[in-house]
Parts: sequence; structure tokens; C-alpha cells
Amino acid sequence: MKLHINQADLAEGINIVMKAVPSKTTMTILECILIDARSQNIRLTGNDMEIGIETIVEGSIEEKGWIALDAKFFSEMVRKLPHSVVTIETNDRSRALITCEKARFEIPGRDAEEYTPLPVIEKEESVAVSQFSLKEIVRQTFFAAAVNENNKMMTGELLEIKDNKMKLSALDGHRIAIRSIELNEECPDKKVVVPGKTLNEISKIVSGEMSDMVRIHFSENYLLFEFDKTKVLSRLIEGEYFRIEHMISTDYETKVVINRQEFISCIDRSTPLIRDTDKMPVVLDIRDEAMGLKVDTTIGSMDEELFIEKTGKDLVIGFNPKFLLDALRVIDEEEVSLYFMNAKAPCFIRDEEGRYLYLILPVNIR
Amino acid sequence: MKLHINQADLAEGINIVMKAVPSKTTMTILECILIDARSQNIRLTGNDMEIGIETIVEGSIEEKGWIALDAKFFSEMVRKLPHSVVTIETNDRSRALITCEKARFEIPGRDAEEYTPLPVIEKEESVAVSQFSLKEIVRQTFFAAAVNENNKMMTGELLEIKDNKMKLSALDGHRIAIRSIELNEECPDKKVVVPGKTLNEISKIVSGEMSDMVRIHFSENYLLFEFDKTKVLSRLIEGEYFRIEHMISTDYETKVVINRQEFISCIDRSTPLIRDTDKMPVVLDIRDEAMGLKVDTTIGSMDEELFIEKTGKDLVIGFNPKFLLDALRVIDEEEVSLYFMNAKAPCFIRDEEGRYLYLILPVNIR
Repeated sequence: MKLHINQADLAEGINIVMKAVPSKTTMTILECILIDARSQNIRLTGNDMEIGIETIVEGSIEEKGWIALDAKFFSEMVRKLPHSVVTIETNDRSRALITCEKARFEIPGRDAEEYTPLPVIEKEESVAVSQFSLKEIVRQTFFAAAVNENNKMMTGELLEIKDNKMKLSALDGHRIAIRSIELNEECPDKKVVVPGKTLNEISKIVSGEMSDMVRIHFSENYLLFEFDKTKVLSRLIEGEYFRIEHMISTDYETKVVINRQEFISCIDRSTPLIRDTDKMPVVLDIRDEAMGLKVDTTIGSMDEELFIEKTGKDLVIGFNPKFLLDALRVIDEEEVSLYFMNAKAPCFIRDEEGRYLYLILPVNIR
Repeated sequence: MKLHINQADLAEGINIVMKAVPSKTTMTILECILIDARSQNIRLTGNDMEIGIETIVEGSIEEKGWIALDAKFFSEMVRKLPHSVVTIETNDRSRALITCEKARFEIPGRDAEEYTPLPVIEKEESVAVSQFSLKEIVRQTFFAAAVNENNKMMTGELLEIKDNKMKLSALDGHRIAIRSIELNEECPDKKVVVPGKTLNEISKIVSGEMSDMVRIHFSENYLLFEFDKTKVLSRLIEGEYFRIEHMISTDYETKVVINRQEFISCIDRSTPLIRDTDKMPVVLDIRDEAMGLKVDTTIGSMDEELFIEKTGKDLVIGFNPKFLLDALRVIDEEEVSLYFMNAKAPCFIRDEEGRYLYLILPVNIR
């Protein structure tokens, strides 16, 4: 194999597939990046068996071939090469010679035959969304998925297609985040659970431009995201997701409209008083025209008044400030509406159009 | 006590004195910031018994007094307050009420009497240097001081005043860094050892402007740095510093002039091949007109040629790449000169004018 690739293109390609390279694994071959130039294109692959990424890099193939190279070393090295043409050459299957201007590296590679190829997906039903929208709805929901692997299903996000809308939902037992976007093309109804980690990695690779698209292909056990010169294949989480619709209600006894940024600043100010260990809540004291925000911990106490528009009953209710902040920070509106039933029922932060909904469970006070 | 201070001024003052607040200590009172408004000024103090910082913040004193407040909480809280006037009020000695716009905090304070005051220094001999120069010579030498407390003296830097020059030297057993600057005023000869940590903290606080000055006062056991509205008091390290002059030589058998940035890039490229654990050296192969840089480790090998101007003998010599990089990165010149005796003797990187000198011990190869 002998390839010539611009350092910048190579570095960018490596950066994309690195998102799928596991840092530690029992299958050491997966700690490699696969360079496949057996056909017309130079294809890089990273794969941790849950997420697989393949991208095509520009360059010329002087001699066809393929090899697997240690991902960590290869990416670090390429990043530090001069901004010039990089030549990657293999004589046999186990050693690679990498040259760029006057720098020459010789490193051991691994037999590409050992590398686990990405499964081939039948491309049947698919839908396209803008890279911008995908990046946004992941950012706006991912934080609510559980990190802890104890409940695998909770680490995933429910991706639903219905009535020409795509909806992403995440929950962790304390809160729910739901975002939905309109689709510009027809697609049959779908309901799959995608690992949150995969969605998060994809959101880091996509451009975030409104005009760039991602095509999402559905298959039995996988989702395939195609965009630019990149394919991301994600294994799905098997089983039935939580019945979110049963947890959602539009009834309320108290409605509060508040300036989002002021509310964020005020909650944020209270956080130095709260140690992770004591988990004290912020208490919202909702009255006509004003809402008191109070925190009282072993470190000290805080008290602040916020201007609000209130409809319905007065209410005193406590929350974990982190959960309020996480939701408020990913909403783009200047003003948000909060809906409450009572001090023991969840709070809903949602818009009228159903584009976003955040449910947060309250914390017992007193 | 009752004070009114602009949030930005208070945050800036806290930021300065925080550099001297220990994160963990058996004397918990030192984890506080002292606010002293018993006279005409509002004075903040942080003190870890090795370094003490005192700064004056603008503001108005409605009622005189003093209190000590938990530094970590106080600094975090003030940073998050609105950009408005902050009022700090104490009724008795043990509780503080902090208000800013509609936010009200009540936190327990500590009796200011318990706080260890900074020692009072007789201001006798002193010298002034620009904040820019002080910041620079610390940055250019501090990295060579030892971090490990096993040898207290090595964690310090030798500050010498002689022949109207100020010289700062640091060493860690593998290398020496020396920088010297001209003084614009007369000062008697001095030779003191300052904790490297103190110098590093000061370099973070000073402005870095050529026109702003720092006055350094010498006393028996302390150095006092005065600048702007801030005083930094540093305890000195007792004992005699290493005799650096005996380790320095201007004899050489090989001289190499090289483009600094190219040399840095080339060494930097080699570092992904070197694991911290195997400590393999980079090998310089110095010949006429060219220098080969070679690394050969368990990960792979690298080989690159660099253009040089050489005087004297050919030489093959090995170095820890980190030590070369640390020195090369703090030199400002486009070209640097390296002087060698043989493969077992130290390499000197220095200018003709004696403004900088870096000594690096070689590593045995084969």
C-alpha cells in the first residue's frame, strides 16, 4: 500500500473516526484505526462494536492495500506533522512507513484482516434532517439520559418518527427531556432506542449547518447516519422504552412565566451553598407577581426575589438546582413557562407548540 | 462592619488574594479571606504562612470592622453575583450578610482576631523592576525548579543582585535555567532563595506591562513585592543555594546554530513515540550542515533531518526531549545556539549577551 494525503485532510479524518475508537478494550485490534485503500477511495474506520464510524479522506492511491494502525499514536503523530503531504507506505502487512517532508516514522501495524468490519446494513427506510437540527436536539436532551450503566435502557434515547415529526426523549428517573422537529419528507412511523453516547458522539462530528443534511437509515438492530463523507453506524438498545406518555400531563394548578436568563443566574448563585454530599434543594416560593428563591444549608443561606407572571394557586416547592439549570440552559427562548400541580408532582417546562418539554421531579422539603 | 464594593472590584481583589489561600491546611482559619476595614481602606488578605497577599479594593466603608470569610465559598459566590454594588455587613463577629440587588446571602464568618496577620517588614533596601520583566524571567526559569519537596532548596529559585543586574536561577538536578535583566537603579548586592511557587503565583498576578513596576524589598527572612494596590510577602528558603557557577563552562567542542521553531516542531513530533515509563531519549546526530534527530522505542522509530550551522566536531548525543522543549519554548529568539563538549557533558543553550543560559544534562545512549 502507498498513499499520499494532505496532513490537514488526514488529521480531520482521523479526528472523526477516533470518536468510535475505544480507549480500553479486551479486543486490542479495536484500539486501531483501519486504513482501507483496496478500492478507489481511502477509507478510515474506527469501531467499538457499539458505534462504528467510517469516513473517506481525499488523497491519491499509488498502490492499493490496507492496514490497521494504533489509533492513539497515529492520531497524535499526524497532528504534529508539518502541513504538507503525508505518505503512508506498507511493505508487508505489519510495518508502516510514514513520511512527511523530512520526517520519517516507522511503526508496527496490525493485520487489517484481524479488524472487525462494520456490519453491512440494508438501506431501506430512511429520513433526512439537517445537521443543525440533529446537533441541537441531541444537545437539548442528552443531558437527561442516565450515565450509569445499571439501567442500560436509561442510557439510551428514544427516537420516534410519527406524523411527520421526529422526537428525541431521554430520562434518568428524576427528569425527562423531549424535543421534536418537523420533517420535510415522508417517513413511516419508527420507534427505536439509540445509545445516548452514540448520539452525543455524532453531534460532535456533524457540522451544525442548517444546509448540511444527515440521512438516517433504519434497520433491525442498527441506525446508520450518513453525512458528508462519513457513515456512523450505531447499535440499537433492545427492549421496550419507558412509557413516557403516561408521565406527561397538561393539567396544572399553577403556571409561572419567567425570564429564563434571570432564573438561571439566580439558581446558579445559590449553588456555591450546596455541597454534592448534602443535596439540599432550592425552594421556590411562588406568589402573585414574585417568586422567592431560597436555599438554606450548613454553609449559609440565600434568599432572592424574582419577578414572574403567575396564574393559579400559590405554591412552595423544592428542586435539585442542577436539574432546573440543565433544562433551562438548553432552551433558546427568552421567557419560559413552568407548570405545577402541587409540591409533590413534577414540574413541566414546555412551550405551546410542543417543540420542547422538560419534566423535573420535585424534592421533598421539610 | 458595613461595606459597599463594586462586584467587579471585589471579584478582582478576591482573585488576587486567593493565590495565597491554602486549599487544605490544619489551621482552618487560613482557609478564609480576611476582610479588614478598620481604617480608611478595605483590605483583603490571604495567607498560607509561606506566601501572604494583601490587596486594597475600592469601595466605601459605612461602618468600620473586620471579619474572616471562607475563601472558597466567598470567591465562588461573589463571582456569580450581578455586576452591581455588593454590600457586606456584619452584626456581630460571626455572621455576615451579603446583599447585591435582590440577592441576600447570610453566611457564618470567623473571628478576624484568630487570623494570622502578615509579618511586618522593615522596608530598607529595595529595587524596582517592570512587571513585564518579572513575569518573563519567572516564566523562563520556573519550569526548571524541582516540584518534589524532598529537596526543599531545589524547589526555590536563586535571586541575585550584582553589578546592576538581577538574575534568577533554577535547577532540578537534570538542568539549570538562568535569566538576567538589567536594573535601572542602584541596589546593593543580594543573594536570596525564593520559593518557586511564590514567584509563580506572583507572575500570575502582575500585569505584564512594561510601564507597571514592582518594588522588591529585602529583609532577613522575607521578600516583599509591592505593586499596584497589592503586597505579596514571601518567606525565603534558608540555607546556601547550589554553586551554579561551578557547573557553567563556556568551553565547547561543537557549536550548533539552529532555527528554534523548526527544532521545537521536530522534537515535539517525536514525543508520541516516547512513553513516560520507558524514558527513551531523542538522539541528535550532529554533522556538517545537518543534524539528524532519531528516536527508537517500543512504539516505533522516527528519523528527521534538520538544517544547522555547525562549528567544531561531529557529535552524537541523547537528551530527554521534555528538557530540550521546556528550554527552547521560553526563548524568544528565532535562532538559538547550542554548545557541546562531548556526549557525556551538558549542553548549553545561551546567547552571547548573557541574558539567558540553559544547561541540560545528556542521557546515556547505548
